[in-house]
Amino acid sequence: MTKIGIMGYGNLGRGVEAAVAQNDDMELAAIFTRRDPADVKPATDVPVVPADQAADWVGKIDVMILCGGSATDLPEQTPACVKLFNVIDSFDTHAHIPQHFAAVDAAAKEGGHIGLISCGWDPGLFSLARIYSSSILPNGSHYTFWGKGVSQGHSDAIRRIPGVKDARQYTVPVDAALEKVRSGENPVFVTRDMHTRECYVVLEDGADPAAVEQAIVTMPNYFADYNTTVHFVSEEELQRDHAGLPHGGFVIRSGVTGLQENTKQVIEFSLNLESNPEFTSSVLVAYARAVARMHAEGVCGCKTVFDIAPKYLCPAEEDWQRAHLL
Amino acid sequence: MTKIGIMGYGNLGRGVEAAVAQNDDMELAAIFTRRDPADVKPATDVPVVPADQAADWVGKIDVMILCGGSATDLPEQTPACVKLFNVIDSFDTHAHIPQHFAAVDAAAKEGGHIGLISCGWDPGLFSLARIYSSSILPNGSHYTFWGKGVSQGHSDAIRRIPGVKDARQYTVPVDAALEKVRSGENPVFVTRDMHTRECYVVLEDGADPAAVEQAIVTMPNYFADYNTTVHFVSEEELQRDHAGLPHGGFVIRSGVTGLQENTKQVIEFSLNLESNPEFTSSVLVAYARAVARMHAEGVCGCKTVFDIAPKYLCPAEEDWQRAHLL
Repeated sequence: MTKIGIMGYGNLGRGVEAAVAQNDDMELAAIFTRRDPADVKPATDVPVVPADQAADWVGKIDVMILCGGSATDLPEQTPACVKLFNVIDSFDTHAHIPQHFAAVDAAAKEGGHIGLISCGWDPGLFSLARIYSSSILPNGSHYTFWGKGVSQGHSDAIRRIPGVKDARQYTVPVDAALEKVRSGENPVFVTRDMHTRECYVVLEDGADPAAVEQAIVTMPNYFADYNTTVHFVSEEELQRDHAGLPHGGFVIRSGVTGLQENTKQVIEFSLNLESNPEFTSSVLVAYARAVARMHAEGVCGCKTVFDIAPKYLCPAEEDWQRAHLL
Repeated sequence: MTKIGIMGYGNLGRGVEAAVAQNDDMELAAIFTRRDPADVKPATDVPVVPADQAADWVGKIDVMILCGGSATDLPEQTPACVKLFNVIDSFDTHAHIPQHFAAVDAAAKEGGHIGLISCGWDPGLFSLARIYSSSILPNGSHYTFWGKGVSQGHSDAIRRIPGVKDARQYTVPVDAALEKVRSGENPVFVTRDMHTRECYVVLEDGADPAAVEQAIVTMPNYFADYNTTVHFVSEEELQRDHAGLPHGGFVIRSGVTGLQENTKQVIEFSLNLESNPEFTSSVLVAYARAVARMHAEGVCGCKTVFDIAPKYLCPAEEDWQRAHLL
């Protein structure tokens, strides 16, 4: 049995708890929290431990899954935790991956552990789609589309506008752009061509809808470069119709082969997820199996999904994998 | 530079020749043939060598790509060649993979080489889609659809019917079945539900179309379990409209997550290929890079795509991979 620890019990931590329960070769050892443990109510029967007592659990946890945020939690937590445990995080600030890798690598080697960073679906499965497909079709382009799905960052940005009580923002890929990519014509897009943004907004009493809409659609970085639609809804409608966290997307590589380089080939990977955090957690748990196995083989240091052979993710024996999945 | 050899110069061998030309870190050392080398006309400037002189090329080839057939060539060739070279084959008789693996593993270890078997897109990339997605969503089902594409085996079966001069058979996935799988309802299918078969047939002079059609649609194993459509065309039409070898398909995993196991999640991988052999070759060449690198690290034995970490396929440095593809 692979013994899993969860550091941080939000949407992602709850998803890990559920994903561990689906895997017969795994068990949840403990949940670690910076809150008062008495305030954390796990869905299953598992101890809740103050985060600063994690060191007491060395030897009782094979892989610690870090469920904090990329902005402030993980840059500190991952290097600190990997000195004590094998760890996995879902660090997703793409631009800062190289420095995060360097910090985690040094700490992981010091502790003799594996630190798998930037796991999940993007970065994660979408990264796999990009590396496999670009290696196979070197003469081509790849495109990543996100959605239809809820962007927490964009929803938060709307909530900060005066007059907004609550909001939910969907990122939506543009069908015409997807079709153009699938046709193999390697189009060049500007931001606006690939995605639209749909906002569902609950106003404070007396707020001016026109002013709020204007503030949203002109917001730099978040909305100004997109075609954005704003729908004003009641608090009840938002709760009823927009409470979920669906997401997904598409990675498409189109390239050409042959000595004339005129044969079109298209590789597509896509996700359609009813729950982004539950799916991300399921990816983290499959990779926890890989981390435990590779550590048992003597591997240490910082790793990404690029370093992990697929066989390590699958609970079945390698003979079975070849007979049934190859 | 990784030095590649090609064993067998048919559609697949020609595809490897073209794929090597697209990769700056590879060069084609020689083509090996069982035919008279004078009868083999490569598209590029490369020596053509009798297959039985391959042993003279030890030290001059890093990876030999075996382009023979699974029925009779590869079960002999792969174990024999792997004693001399690192090799890759596209052995695709799924039911015989375990015994092929065992034979190649013993010979590869004897020679100190890597023998990567069953590479390409199915087995190969579709196998990757199956192992990743089933590891991530353990409570679910996966479905493999092929097409729209030309099946050489089915085309050959039609050509053996008396009165048939030439034929081309397309395997076509049923759209309604694809949509049912994508909806996450985990349907149970019989053979007929998932694919149809479309046949384009040129008759010999005086042949009876009704008899030929009846012979096709009732043929056991090949057509009897499918809804099959037969179109009679002229030899000119067949050449003009059906000369290519397109193919592709879909691997879809649908599963549920959450403690209630009621959240639907769908992972889809698909290929849309204008040329099946050119694409398969491109996969083989990317994996040739991986084989050369892993052999340089001291790895030997029989391997499949399940054993190869994605980083080995990509020509770029690992730092670059993390900065640009993760």
